[in-house]
Amino acid sequence: MPANELHYLSAWELSGLIRSREISPVDVVEACLARIEATEPTLNSFITLLPEQARAAAQRAEAEIGRGSYRGPLHGIPVGLKDLFNTAGVRTTSGTRIYDTHVPDEDCTVAARFNAAGAILLGKLNMHPLAFGPTGENADYGHMHNPWNPERITGGSSGGSGSATAAGQCTITMGSDTGGSVRIPAALCGIVGLKPTYGRISRAGLTPLSWCLDHPGPMTRTVEDAALAMNAIAGPDPKDHVTAPGPVPDYTQALTEDVRGLRIGVVREFFDGPLDGEVASLAQQAISALGEMGAEIVEVSLPMFQYAQPISNVILSAEATAAHRDILLSDGDQLYPQVRDRLEEGLFITASEYLRAQQGRQVFCQQVGRLLQDVDLLAGPVEPVTAPEILARRIEIDGSLDGAGEPAVPLLTRYTRVYNITGSPAISVPCGFASDGLPAALHLAGRNFDEATVLRAAYAYQQAHDWHRQRPPI
Amino acid sequence: MPANELHYLSAWELSGLIRSREISPVDVVEACLARIEATEPTLNSFITLLPEQARAAAQRAEAEIGRGSYRGPLHGIPVGLKDLFNTAGVRTTSGTRIYDTHVPDEDCTVAARFNAAGAILLGKLNMHPLAFGPTGENADYGHMHNPWNPERITGGSSGGSGSATAAGQCTITMGSDTGGSVRIPAALCGIVGLKPTYGRISRAGLTPLSWCLDHPGPMTRTVEDAALAMNAIAGPDPKDHVTAPGPVPDYTQALTEDVRGLRIGVVREFFDGPLDGEVASLAQQAISALGEMGAEIVEVSLPMFQYAQPISNVILSAEATAAHRDILLSDGDQLYPQVRDRLEEGLFITASEYLRAQQGRQVFCQQVGRLLQDVDLLAGPVEPVTAPEILARRIEIDGSLDGAGEPAVPLLTRYTRVYNITGSPAISVPCGFASDGLPAALHLAGRNFDEATVLRAAYAYQQAHDWHRQRPPI
Repeated sequence: MPANELHYLSAWELSGLIRSREISPVDVVEACLARIEATEPTLNSFITLLPEQARAAAQRAEAEIGRGSYRGPLHGIPVGLKDLFNTAGVRTTSGTRIYDTHVPDEDCTVAARFNAAGAILLGKLNMHPLAFGPTGENADYGHMHNPWNPERITGGSSGGSGSATAAGQCTITMGSDTGGSVRIPAALCGIVGLKPTYGRISRAGLTPLSWCLDHPGPMTRTVEDAALAMNAIAGPDPKDHVTAPGPVPDYTQALTEDVRGLRIGVVREFFDGPLDGEVASLAQQAISALGEMGAEIVEVSLPMFQYAQPISNVILSAEATAAHRDILLSDGDQLYPQVRDRLEEGLFITASEYLRAQQGRQVFCQQVGRLLQDVDLLAGPVEPVTAPEILARRIEIDGSLDGAGEPAVPLLTRYTRVYNITGSPAISVPCGFASDGLPAALHLAGRNFDEATVLRAAYAYQQAHDWHRQRPPI
Repeated sequence: MPANELHYLSAWELSGLIRSREISPVDVVEACLARIEATEPTLNSFITLLPEQARAAAQRAEAEIGRGSYRGPLHGIPVGLKDLFNTAGVRTTSGTRIYDTHVPDEDCTVAARFNAAGAILLGKLNMHPLAFGPTGENADYGHMHNPWNPERITGGSSGGSGSATAAGQCTITMGSDTGGSVRIPAALCGIVGLKPTYGRISRAGLTPLSWCLDHPGPMTRTVEDAALAMNAIAGPDPKDHVTAPGPVPDYTQALTEDVRGLRIGVVREFFDGPLDGEVASLAQQAISALGEMGAEIVEVSLPMFQYAQPISNVILSAEATAAHRDILLSDGDQLYPQVRDRLEEGLFITASEYLRAQQGRQVFCQQVGRLLQDVDLLAGPVEPVTAPEILARRIEIDGSLDGAGEPAVPLLTRYTRVYNITGSPAISVPCGFASDGLPAALHLAGRNFDEATVLRAAYAYQQAHDWHRQRPPI
């Protein structure tokens, strides 16, 4: 295995080689650091790179494995964390210069669990400031660039996590998803992004955006790596009272390549309205492929889909403003203007409006819940477009009612917000490329705490199609 | 057993006699109806009395039991429901003339479960309008009067439930408790009131006051009747998504009279500040009695107690206004002025303020949770005073910093709100009489979903003291 290929191997593949000592964690970390050096000026995935800390950790992992103390499949695997995951002794900026020198005392639970599993932290990844935006803009630390075309956005807010994974800078990264911020960059960068069920992964030590919508999730090049990451980090945490009690399954058991008997509901409303024809067709083909593999495909309807945006907007803005009110009032002029404007809007939401949105959310969840009594999974596209140009505020798209194009923020979060409202596990899995050379993605969502079925269908599709073997031109 | 005594027997006692056919549900219902006729002009417990419906149900129960189809301990037992529990075909006013002619199509889950258990509904009970007040005032349907002294309040909001149970009008009643509305009238009327854990009893079909603080709960003359009521109505309900899944224990198993080994924490802050000396002394004596029976009594501290009122106030007002905004805007002039004023206050709470209160609540819950890691129960008085006069707005009390007395609403909810914030199971159990002849009550709260330990301690205390055998002079 030549060292210059290691950065594109999956954790699944690397772990076999590391365990058998065919390669060392030192080789893997060096391969990733070389890849970072080659690509970082273009991509700008990192806010803080930790080469010396990572090299030292790789040496320790090598020694430990050499002594026969192999910890498991993430031992020696290079990971990156969105820069709102607290890391002890390593600054955590949440993507804004206001926190440029903020150094937490303690690891967040996810970082602590990755450490315990032997994973090696390469650095802290770029993000939309305060995670409040779906495009991956960041004037403070520089915009993020898509490995498939650096003039295009990565998607946000976990844009650095998307580009770092897609370009082979890290094997596994973590993002957080409040309105789509794991799945949007996963879709636009051509990788796998899993937003697990609300309460499946601890948020302790993460900068909040919206307490009741925030979901941390792994971003990987393969479905099996998402399962491995989940095995390491999912589960109850006394530090986060919303985490669900009880044991977590071994998610690799779900990787059977068998979808026979699964009922998959195609949500009719996801294919109405502004949606690029090529992207729609790629998602439809992926769903048909699952049908050919033995899943039963049925059409279902979610009439309340039209309310996903207003419900999510009100809750998210109100909670984001409550979370960040102090810096808005004291340092608002230093905030990225687009983010500041959205926080200011939140100041004017009344408790009644917020609670009405929460009531609407309950009805919305009931409607989705009824669909998921009938089917095992809901399917559609993750994004209605491939990655737009950086800083584009309106986007030309098929089906737009407005000659000037659709506003970017609601367009990019059009499908993803649905499952932040419901808390359902939802995955973005690559499903081909449009004629612009940019990736498209299939969206699969399941019942709460049934990540296994989501991973099972995504894995079966991945194994039959191999899109994850395509490499970005960078 | 003379019929004129039946109205004061407990469900526990009646069920033995009904099962063995020594008495008929018809006798029991007639005894209660006679008692209602004798006392109702004074007490005004009922908004809607259902004598013919109850007599017909008693006849059916008698016939069913005669055929050998005995349903269990609530078969033939007369119950009353606070008038915010929906009852199919029976008007449900929520205590306001605005809903004077509102007739639900469907029973609430609690009513349906009482029906299934064979209980007999005598009527719908008076309440503070919209359940938004702790005193038991109601200009629309008349104020509620305390059976121990009709010039005094019953406490609210479930005042009719308190007086009906205390005076032997019903064997078991149901109240709902958002800031104390089960425990306050239980304490002031000298009965047992249990606020179970949030999510233990379904709220489906109840008029909401505050979704995240509302708890339905039984009001009974004895602890064993609270256990019997819980057995019939507690448990998961698909119609209320906050109900906890999983089985419910048989609560009568907790009635062992044995408190040896229990650790009971006396919350120091509950005995500071405005608190009547006699009431404090009665609560202290009750706690000491539990100590003499073998429980270990320790002093604990809840420094955040001072924040219970502001946290609860902001959440409750905001949610009440969101729930009742439409009638406030359309029919505000018809609302009881005190309730209208409190709903109007809620209009001006911002989402940020509401969410800050919810954040404060989390920290508060952590503090109480840490105490309950160390002790099994927390103890104190339910009320800082015995029942004040009807319409008293300020109350003279020992320890008041204000010469004009303490405002009634915060005073009456001073201790009770703590466990609406935390969702903990909490009981009010009679612990003697002050020199004004009015009852005082012991407050015991336990870990979430551990109603059994709360009932166990309350039962042991009751059995050793017999306050529940005292009858009001009415």
